[in-house]
Amino acid sequence: MKVDGKDIRTIWLDKDERIIKIIDQRKLPHEFIIADLKTVDDAIEAIKDMYVRGAPLIGATGAYGMYLATLNAPHDQIDIEYLTKEGDRLKSARPTAVNLAWGVDKALTAIVNVSDPARKIRLAKETAAAITEQEVENCRKIGEHGLSLIEQLSSSKGGQPVNILTHCNAGWLACIEHGTATAPIYAAFDHGLDIHVWVDETRPLNQGTRLTAWELGKHGVKHTIITDNAGGYLMQHAMVDIVIVGTDRTAVSGDVANKIGTYLKALAAWDNQVPFYVALPSSTFDWNVRDGVNDIPIEQRDPAEIKYVYGLDQDRTTKVLICPESSPAANYAFDVTPAKYVTGFITERGICQATEEDIRSLFPDKGR
Amino acid sequence: MKVDGKDIRTIWLDKDERIIKIIDQRKLPHEFIIADLKTVDDAIEAIKDMYVRGAPLIGATGAYGMYLATLNAPHDQIDIEYLTKEGDRLKSARPTAVNLAWGVDKALTAIVNVSDPARKIRLAKETAAAITEQEVENCRKIGEHGLSLIEQLSSSKGGQPVNILTHCNAGWLACIEHGTATAPIYAAFDHGLDIHVWVDETRPLNQGTRLTAWELGKHGVKHTIITDNAGGYLMQHAMVDIVIVGTDRTAVSGDVANKIGTYLKALAAWDNQVPFYVALPSSTFDWNVRDGVNDIPIEQRDPAEIKYVYGLDQDRTTKVLICPESSPAANYAFDVTPAKYVTGFITERGICQATEEDIRSLFPDKGR
Repeated sequence: MKVDGKDIRTIWLDKDERIIKIIDQRKLPHEFIIADLKTVDDAIEAIKDMYVRGAPLIGATGAYGMYLATLNAPHDQIDIEYLTKEGDRLKSARPTAVNLAWGVDKALTAIVNVSDPARKIRLAKETAAAITEQEVENCRKIGEHGLSLIEQLSSSKGGQPVNILTHCNAGWLACIEHGTATAPIYAAFDHGLDIHVWVDETRPLNQGTRLTAWELGKHGVKHTIITDNAGGYLMQHAMVDIVIVGTDRTAVSGDVANKIGTYLKALAAWDNQVPFYVALPSSTFDWNVRDGVNDIPIEQRDPAEIKYVYGLDQDRTTKVLICPESSPAANYAFDVTPAKYVTGFITERGICQATEEDIRSLFPDKGR
Repeated sequence: MKVDGKDIRTIWLDKDERIIKIIDQRKLPHEFIIADLKTVDDAIEAIKDMYVRGAPLIGATGAYGMYLATLNAPHDQIDIEYLTKEGDRLKSARPTAVNLAWGVDKALTAIVNVSDPARKIRLAKETAAAITEQEVENCRKIGEHGLSLIEQLSSSKGGQPVNILTHCNAGWLACIEHGTATAPIYAAFDHGLDIHVWVDETRPLNQGTRLTAWELGKHGVKHTIITDNAGGYLMQHAMVDIVIVGTDRTAVSGDVANKIGTYLKALAAWDNQVPFYVALPSSTFDWNVRDGVNDIPIEQRDPAEIKYVYGLDQDRTTKVLICPESSPAANYAFDVTPAKYVTGFITERGICQATEEDIRSLFPDKGR
């Protein structure tokens, strides 16, 4: 993706192949800092302290962490015991991130029965690179399929700007390239369609204002930040043509868990006949859950994330208290949008409706 | 209302009857400052710079501003020309605030044809006091009628805490005492019912976190601050028993204009069969508007209110930039909730449904 005219991803291997480069996303949008991961400890810190975030990116970072494990140990110590221990340390950096364990284990499986140390190193590197490319390819295809929806809207509006609303950051910063919800947006932009994105700020952590606005701006996509409260008004007044969001986990029934507030936007879209799409790679479907509202556990996070807001004061980032110190706050991080309010899913294989039948017919080989 | 155990209003006449006392609400919740209004210029500054806010309080401040006008002029100068000029200056402090002009004009009408200067001063004072008491009485009655709803919920829950969700600040800080949306809450609390309030932070200006949380906390009412995104989740999980909000203007059809985001909460309440009530004095009904969504003009405010967040950094209040400086923002301040999503109105005369027929049958003497 473009940052100040340069192509960039969220993770890559440095030219000498001894350092993993990442964007330290904690500093965005006020500082753009590339960080070096030279050791497993560096990778653990980057995952734990959220230099990197988003399922695909965390998975790739975990796999590259295993590459660093092989690279930095003396050749005679890259044995099963050492690799398992380093893998466990990496996985414990964010224990609930499914993709992290998946990325680490995939690298581990590729090398655990290989005896030649140099081959181990090469295979770990190739596995991490393959995971990365696969994620990029999935996102690229999501963009390709979602593009058709935006093309239709653009043509039905006679080329007038298509207004897209998105919530949180399901952008390339959460992936490697393209993003999920943003993939159709970048595809439409790169095809020269006239588009404009309404960016929900996404309280409490402001991923919309901090990350989505930043990446859209850097790529050159027209956008406007709004409060999470504003989407209903915009939809009532025909100022939104389509909503596209990401998801953290989607039940096979089509119920969508995503950042808190997504459900409210889906209701407004439904009330105003605005199409509401969810973009996701099929790995995000949970083939075992049907009642998303009741059976997907919702994380409750630190109330301090609500009571304090981070930002830039003159030249210094700081946090400010926005409420009486004694008032308690509750921080539910996700909500679940019932399938009936979802127009469809944009996946790497194409678009389907939010029903178990349609999801399964697009992915007959999965979840069995 | 209680602040640290002391009874207080948002505006009152000092003992010597030469100074109007108000709370400087700009400093809340981090500082509690009582400001003195000694001159018309003080009153204008307080209105213009939002030391005071909320229709009833602005109306009372306008009337007391006219009292200060009579008080501070030499007796032989309190003529029609002077009074009209001072009234116009007061009204121009916030030209769109209907209650301001109403309060100023009411004081003006009471004194303009009176010749005795001392009587003028006394009548201006009495008019301002009468306006103030009328607003207090309206809010008290709203509380009394709304209390019955909370009592029913409490009894149907066998005395378990009744969870009330509110948006923005329709509290006593926007009025003189009791508030509108908060009047039933304070009435229930004072009656010893077990209640708990979910306080929407209400971006962009955070009136929920800054004002509602503060006033509930000072009065001793249990409450929890949430992001504007969270209400849908809470309602899906039966954690809200009733929603009560205020309104800036309500069409005679029952369409409700209120702080941006209200509509999204109404949709969630409707989707989860949670009663959604609007508390208002009948002066807030607009008897001439039927199509609220299309015919109530919505103010667009400074985008800086979204891009910067005010708060306390250590011991100092400051503002922080929360997005890329180059990203534009759009700040729609209100939205309109269609009548079909409103369970009912809590007014000074009782509760009615959100239909023109029911509103008019409760207020047959108004809007003709």
